[in-house]
This record gives sequence, structure tokens and C-alpha cells, in this order.
Amino acid sequence: MEPRGGSLTAASRLDATFAALADPTRRAILARLASGDASVTELAEPFAISQPAISKHLKVLERAGLISRGRDAQRRPRRLEAAPLAEVTRWLDEYRRFWEGSFQRLDAVLDELKAERKRESTGRKRKKRP
Amino acid sequence: MEPRGGSLTAASRLDATFAALADPTRRAILARLASGDASVTELAEPFAISQPAISKHLKVLERAGLISRGRDAQRRPRRLEAAPLAEVTRWLDEYRRFWEGSFQRLDAVLDELKAERKRESTGRKRKKRP
Repeated sequence: MEPRGGSLTAASRLDATFAALADPTRRAILARLASGDASVTELAEPFAISQPAISKHLKVLERAGLISRGRDAQRRPRRLEAAPLAEVTRWLDEYRRFWEGSFQRLDAVLDELKAERKRESTGRKRKKRP
Repeated sequence: MEPRGGSLTAASRLDATFAALADPTRRAILARLASGDASVTELAEPFAISQPAISKHLKVLERAGLISRGRDAQRRPRRLEAAPLAEVTRWLDEYRRFWEGSFQRLDAVLDELKAERKRESTGRKRKKRP
């Protein structure tokens, strides 16, 4: 793994990572690489787009440090590099309490609704019409 | 919270979220909203950019479902909505094993290097020059 973005600030590294991830083809390439290194030809196969278009996507991923090139000079297999994803995860951790919080609030609301419905249905049973 | 992106696929929701997050001002706005709802004027304050520029960023965040507008018609306070961030976290979870794996490999390499150095230094001590 080559040192990536040595001169970049953490903010501009995140900019590059998020921008690189904002494309379904690039995310699909990462998903493919998650199951093993692959050459450009292998990566282009499942997509209905040209090899130059794939190469362009690979450049974006490479600039963001999300992939690197293997040593095999012929195949130049691409490899997934997870460090930028770990950085994104650390960034997201600051916000984790928000969705965990909202799910807890949602659970509380649902519990309250259930309890209310139960009280209502018990009430109806008691007030059965003659 | 308004239902967001009902007609959008999961992929295009991720596209919108990642694109919205690929900007330091927009991430700073989210960080500000994490400490409480705020009006556009309040959000613009810490930034050396115009209010229209801030409004443009807010639109991007809103389209991605990352913020919503409060009911107060005058202030229209913006609120952080964490659901898209939870979606990003779920997406990232698929890759977690990669950086966890690489850190484990790195630890193993470092342990090996330490052990080697220890063996070398013990060797040198034994072969002291006369």
C-alpha cells in the first residue's frame, strides 16, 4: 500500500473519499474488489460501459486512496484499500448517537401506542353492548 | 421528519448522501446541527460565505434527506436527520472486515519486527568484541 494523500488535510481526504463513493459504478467496483484483486479487464466485464470509462472511475478511486495497484506489471491488478473507509466510519461515529437516539425514541413511541391500543381494546371489551 | 426519497432507489439515495457529504462546509453545517436546530442566519454566521451560498448547501443537504425544516414558519430552523448517515454506516459495515483485517495484519508484522530486533540485540550482546 502506497502512502496516500500525505499532503492532504483530513478534510480534503474526506472530500475525495465521499466524492469517489457518490457513484454506483465506483461502489460496485469496490464491492467486486472486496472479493479479491482484479485487473482492469476483469473489473470492466460486469459493466455495460467501455474500458476507458472504467479506467476513469478507477482513477477517481485511486486518487481517493480507495484502491491501489498490484506489482504484477502485466495485469496491474487493483486492490481495495480500506483506510479511507475507516476514516469515513470514524467521521460517522460522531453522529451515531443521533440515529441510535431516534430509534430509541421511535421504540418508545411504538411501545406507548401499543400500550394505548391495549388499554382501548380492554376498555371496549368491558363496555360490551347488551 | 418527512419521508425522504420515497421514489429513490437505495443506490441513488447513497449517491445523493455521499455527494452531499463531499464538501467541508456541508459537513460543518451537519456538525453545527448536531448540537441543536438552527436557522439559516445562525448557520451562516461561522462561515465566511454569503447567505445564498449557505442556502445552496442547505438545499443539497435537504435533497439528500440529511436535514429537515422545523415547523416554526418564521425561523424555519434546520434539523439534522440521521437516517441517511445510518444507511451509509450499513453500507460501510460490509467493508469493516477489511480495515479490521489490515490492522490485525499490521499488528502481526510489528510484533514480528519487534521479536526480530530483540533476537538481533540479544545476539549482539552475546558476540561482544574482546
